[in-house]
Amino acid sequence: MHGPQVNAERLWATIQETARFGATERGGLCRLALSDADRAVRDWFRGACERTGCKVEVDQLGNMFARRPGRRPELAPIGVGSHLDTQPTGGRFDGVLGVLAGVELLRTLNDRQLETQHPLAVVNWTNEEGARFTPAMLGSGVFAGTYTKDFAYARKDRHGVRLGSELKRIGYQGEMPCGHERFASFFELHIEQGPVLEQQGKAIGVVVGVQGMRWFDLHLYGMAAHAGTTPRRMRRDASVGAARFIDGASRLADAFGEDVRATTGVVELSPGVHNVVPESAHVTLDLRHPSEETLERLEHELRATLEAIGSELGLTYELVLVASNPPVAFDDDCIRTVREAAASRKLESMEIVSGAGHDSVHVARVAPTGMIFIPCVQGISHNEVESALPEHVAAGAQVLLETALRRDRELASI
Amino acid sequence: MHGPQVNAERLWATIQETARFGATERGGLCRLALSDADRAVRDWFRGACERTGCKVEVDQLGNMFARRPGRRPELAPIGVGSHLDTQPTGGRFDGVLGVLAGVELLRTLNDRQLETQHPLAVVNWTNEEGARFTPAMLGSGVFAGTYTKDFAYARKDRHGVRLGSELKRIGYQGEMPCGHERFASFFELHIEQGPVLEQQGKAIGVVVGVQGMRWFDLHLYGMAAHAGTTPRRMRRDASVGAARFIDGASRLADAFGEDVRATTGVVELSPGVHNVVPESAHVTLDLRHPSEETLERLEHELRATLEAIGSELGLTYELVLVASNPPVAFDDDCIRTVREAAASRKLESMEIVSGAGHDSVHVARVAPTGMIFIPCVQGISHNEVESALPEHVAAGAQVLLETALRRDRELASI
Repeated sequence: MHGPQVNAERLWATIQETARFGATERGGLCRLALSDADRAVRDWFRGACERTGCKVEVDQLGNMFARRPGRRPELAPIGVGSHLDTQPTGGRFDGVLGVLAGVELLRTLNDRQLETQHPLAVVNWTNEEGARFTPAMLGSGVFAGTYTKDFAYARKDRHGVRLGSELKRIGYQGEMPCGHERFASFFELHIEQGPVLEQQGKAIGVVVGVQGMRWFDLHLYGMAAHAGTTPRRMRRDASVGAARFIDGASRLADAFGEDVRATTGVVELSPGVHNVVPESAHVTLDLRHPSEETLERLEHELRATLEAIGSELGLTYELVLVASNPPVAFDDDCIRTVREAAASRKLESMEIVSGAGHDSVHVARVAPTGMIFIPCVQGISHNEVESALPEHVAAGAQVLLETALRRDRELASI
Repeated sequence: MHGPQVNAERLWATIQETARFGATERGGLCRLALSDADRAVRDWFRGACERTGCKVEVDQLGNMFARRPGRRPELAPIGVGSHLDTQPTGGRFDGVLGVLAGVELLRTLNDRQLETQHPLAVVNWTNEEGARFTPAMLGSGVFAGTYTKDFAYARKDRHGVRLGSELKRIGYQGEMPCGHERFASFFELHIEQGPVLEQQGKAIGVVVGVQGMRWFDLHLYGMAAHAGTTPRRMRRDASVGAARFIDGASRLADAFGEDVRATTGVVELSPGVHNVVPESAHVTLDLRHPSEETLERLEHELRATLEAIGSELGLTYELVLVASNPPVAFDDDCIRTVREAAASRKLESMEIVSGAGHDSVHVARVAPTGMIFIPCVQGISHNEVESALPEHVAAGAQVLLETALRRDRELASI
């Protein structure tokens, strides 16, 4: 079949047009959640959707739902969307693409005067980035029942300003209860934020899930000693312990296969003087894998490695699990639909597991959910130089449209 | 033979008495070079030596020489001494012991009305610690011609105050040209500042030399990347590079034998965020060994290890030698004299290489020099809890006296 085609130039122009809200000097965006810039882009989004004939509803967390009626109003809508807030030095695509592709979807359907069976809903989730109010993905989290509304309202930014009062201030605390909207399915288009698609030469990533994550803080305790006078056999050297732990985690990751992500971003030695054997070390470890069982085995092996290191070097230690998110598997039918949509447009795709968290992680708890990735240039994201190629943006929006229409037909025919 | 015996109680009392100059609340000393506290202890030293009948001369760097005449005034003096300045949170023994044992030596000889062939000189060197004015061992360095007088005068403390003006302020810029005094031999008694003697159960360390030292700054450069989205094979992870370097240095040290000291005291990762693969790492390495040839081989192996790490992980690097001190071997006759002096008093001794620098490193350039170590409790030094047992202090002072007298007889009989 040969379905409707998104207007790629219009979508690209829209991305550039809305980049004026929160524009930074270096060409990126600073559009922190519930800031004046966020209000401005929300106002724009409401207007753009209303001009396509949609009704825009806002829930009590400021999540925005632009609804286009379907032929069968008794059906739950098929949702598409992402977020319009950004990091303080964010780019023009992270989140933004998924919402504006939804707007383009509405416009394309209107151009062709197409009617779907299900209603459609284009969503802008509140505070996805977590850059102003922690935790990240808060609007979708309350929507899905992961967090309570009151918990979200009480979140403070670093100036002590509450999320609840900022929602009111910018006029985006709506009446609709959170979670009131139910989706027949939900799809999120997003840049990959990693280098895999670009390096593999694939335009589309069929996201099968989001990997699980465990964050550890390691504290190693040895003994401070004079670097010149203390023989090695009398040392309890926390820096060597830290080094062997980082090296051990990296080799463990190699042994467990390429889906493991093990990252040490912080090392602090105390007293931190070049000619003193450190008495203690603080090391972080960010460990991720798509399988909870593998994460469990990795942690087990890691603790065994650490025990051996501590014993050999005479160090005591604490390895504390400071955060843990289980892996998410997206809906099989949603995944299949994305794959088929890409194939129908002769776009090269590959299955991929998301390394980063997204609103869809929460939505997947309450609706069949899928995600579509496109490459971003050099895998760079959360950075003002973040970029995506126009051809990939077009391909992603086309697959989003195709996916929504296919899912609409499939579900309506059941 | 049975020679004179030092008065161990008097020496111990003197150590405690002078600990009032720069005393800290926690029982240590803060007697920074050329501070008021340093002036006070210098005044005390001058008085104590003059009361034994010595003439005290001060050179242009503030180095103090208390001279006790010998039977043969034409001979160069046998020198003993160390330094009275301390770290900001220093102990009561580091340096102090070597000077006050010299005072006890003068007193003991007077008690027994003994006359030596050579004159004796008890020395207090200026600014050994380097805690206020860098570099360390500055007074002895100018004495030996390692540094010029003007270089030393121009050294500034962290408030911008020059060493030269502080010397004048406290009244210790003398008339005697630096290096004017020539020693027939020089001996320095010092606490070990390490754990070897204590753990080996030896009262006396016969110091055969001071190990060489090379200080390196390693900068590793990779690429910042998202901890969740970047596969291992696409990473250029500076923290894994840093870990493998530290581990490699420690294993290299093991392979080269127990005299190697390899210490990493500082690790800095950038950007230093727990969920970002670090783009760069700064690592220090303090490498020491008694043999310059071994240091050279170690550095060579280290660079080969680093090259392999960089190549495997896709990292570039700079390994910069920021400081280098060649090893010092003390005079064979001085070493033998110390060993025989210990044996004559039935004190258990062992040969030891000093891991730390001392004034004797410089003096050894211009005079036959030897050092005597005694154990310090738990090897702790540069700390207010630094301590030494009275029996070891007594043993050290006795060996210093015995060594000076033996050396006096030997040289006079040539």
